[in-house]
Amino acid sequence: MMPWNQVTIIGTGLIGGSLGLALKQAGLAGKIIGIGHRQSTLDAAIACGAVDEGTLDAAEGVRGSDLVVLATAVGLFEPLLRQAADDLADGAVVIDVGSTKAEVVRTAEALMPAGRVFVGCHPIAGSEKRGIDYVDADLFSGATCVITPTDRTPAEALQRVAETWEALGMQVVRLDPEEHDRLLAEVSHLPHVVAAALVQAVRSDAEPLVGSGWADTTRIAASDPALWRDILLTNARGVGEALQRFRETLAALEGALADRDAERLERLLGEAKARRDRVVGR
Amino acid sequence: MMPWNQVTIIGTGLIGGSLGLALKQAGLAGKIIGIGHRQSTLDAAIACGAVDEGTLDAAEGVRGSDLVVLATAVGLFEPLLRQAADDLADGAVVIDVGSTKAEVVRTAEALMPAGRVFVGCHPIAGSEKRGIDYVDADLFSGATCVITPTDRTPAEALQRVAETWEALGMQVVRLDPEEHDRLLAEVSHLPHVVAAALVQAVRSDAEPLVGSGWADTTRIAASDPALWRDILLTNARGVGEALQRFRETLAALEGALADRDAERLERLLGEAKARRDRVVGR
Repeated sequence: MMPWNQVTIIGTGLIGGSLGLALKQAGLAGKIIGIGHRQSTLDAAIACGAVDEGTLDAAEGVRGSDLVVLATAVGLFEPLLRQAADDLADGAVVIDVGSTKAEVVRTAEALMPAGRVFVGCHPIAGSEKRGIDYVDADLFSGATCVITPTDRTPAEALQRVAETWEALGMQVVRLDPEEHDRLLAEVSHLPHVVAAALVQAVRSDAEPLVGSGWADTTRIAASDPALWRDILLTNARGVGEALQRFRETLAALEGALADRDAERLERLLGEAKARRDRVVGR
Repeated sequence: MMPWNQVTIIGTGLIGGSLGLALKQAGLAGKIIGIGHRQSTLDAAIACGAVDEGTLDAAEGVRGSDLVVLATAVGLFEPLLRQAADDLADGAVVIDVGSTKAEVVRTAEALMPAGRVFVGCHPIAGSEKRGIDYVDADLFSGATCVITPTDRTPAEALQRVAETWEALGMQVVRLDPEEHDRLLAEVSHLPHVVAAALVQAVRSDAEPLVGSGWADTTRIAASDPALWRDILLTNARGVGEALQRFRETLAALEGALADRDAERLERLLGEAKARRDRVVGR
């Protein structure tokens, strides 16, 4: 595919920095400009080769770029777009890497000046780690990227964005933004809420007895609170629905246990195991 | 410490087989006899060096051993002890490696003939994997082992059992059996129930979108259903209480989200992160 002449990445943390590295290694970007809110982060991003140059000024940083990537916490997308929208180059494609899509796409499309295009993206890759220190050019390879076009998305821009993710080794799935949020609530946002609740269900005298099972089950509770505050708030309805489903599946197990029904309990545990084995084995 | 002359391990799966290997490598057992319910498993245990010989007959297998280890699913401890109790050597020490203790210790102590001693043990080590194919002599090293003496436990046997686990690199903690179950419900049994419920809260069209976070959070849902049926049923009250605590910590998060209270939501997520970082960082 044709590389982008100049790419601006707004937010050079784990995802933004890794994307810069990956685009460079794949030969998909001429020059990469990083936008951050701390000079030290930009310096680190330049030092590790994730971006070529950096600026603290969003309007300045997007000028002349044919691809602009929003890679901050979801809650910052709107103020950053308001700062930079007037300086977007004619024909610029703006994408994001946020974990929720309906509200993000609605807001971003409304802020796009004529001749500029927004394509919502969610590369399902990451870590509970954050920051430029953990960048990894292979973060995206082998994972799924959801892109969420609307009836306002030009086919050409959509195609080019999809090809970019595919060139980084991702499998691209197209979904309606609302559908994306409903599905991601179940596989991602719900587990984050549940992991945090599991941590706090432990009394202090039980802490020394945690094993590797607890550590794995609660790993995502170590994620950045501000990032997840934004994700949960921008998909509050989807998360609420997923919580309702979870309460029902939990009640089924709890009921079997309360009834001391060994057969039903084993069946429910066995069904969950079979499904988990199948889904993760894919 | 003085090695055991002859050790019988009832159940040569992941834990039993790994224990056999570890005892041998540490020079803590003269001869090791494995008891299984399938000859093929015993053959595999002999082939990998976990036991020296094997038998399908529990009564025959315990004869002459000064240490007998129950390493099957918790629900099989009682029938196995009933089969083998009369053949236990005078002075034999019987231990288990089960994940629940109150019911196990009560039952096992009642079945011990005069001159034979039971000491409840729970090495907090393992995996969602099961079976002799995954044995690992280092499974116990660096982990915690809870031992649960009662007023019927002789000090000498207790000391020798504790030293055995310590010689395998474990940190030994002594707890009352009921206290063990209350604490383990929070850090182990509750997460298993929750992980199974999380798996089933996902609708089929969301399955292709799972990432590494979901895989980790639900890993323990891939555990053996029969094993966990027994664990949950023998600690139904403890698990019920832990579920009640979990419902409260989950409701706090859900309430902040329903109120769209960004500050409260971030605080709750931040508190969970800080606690998880501290507990796992130990």
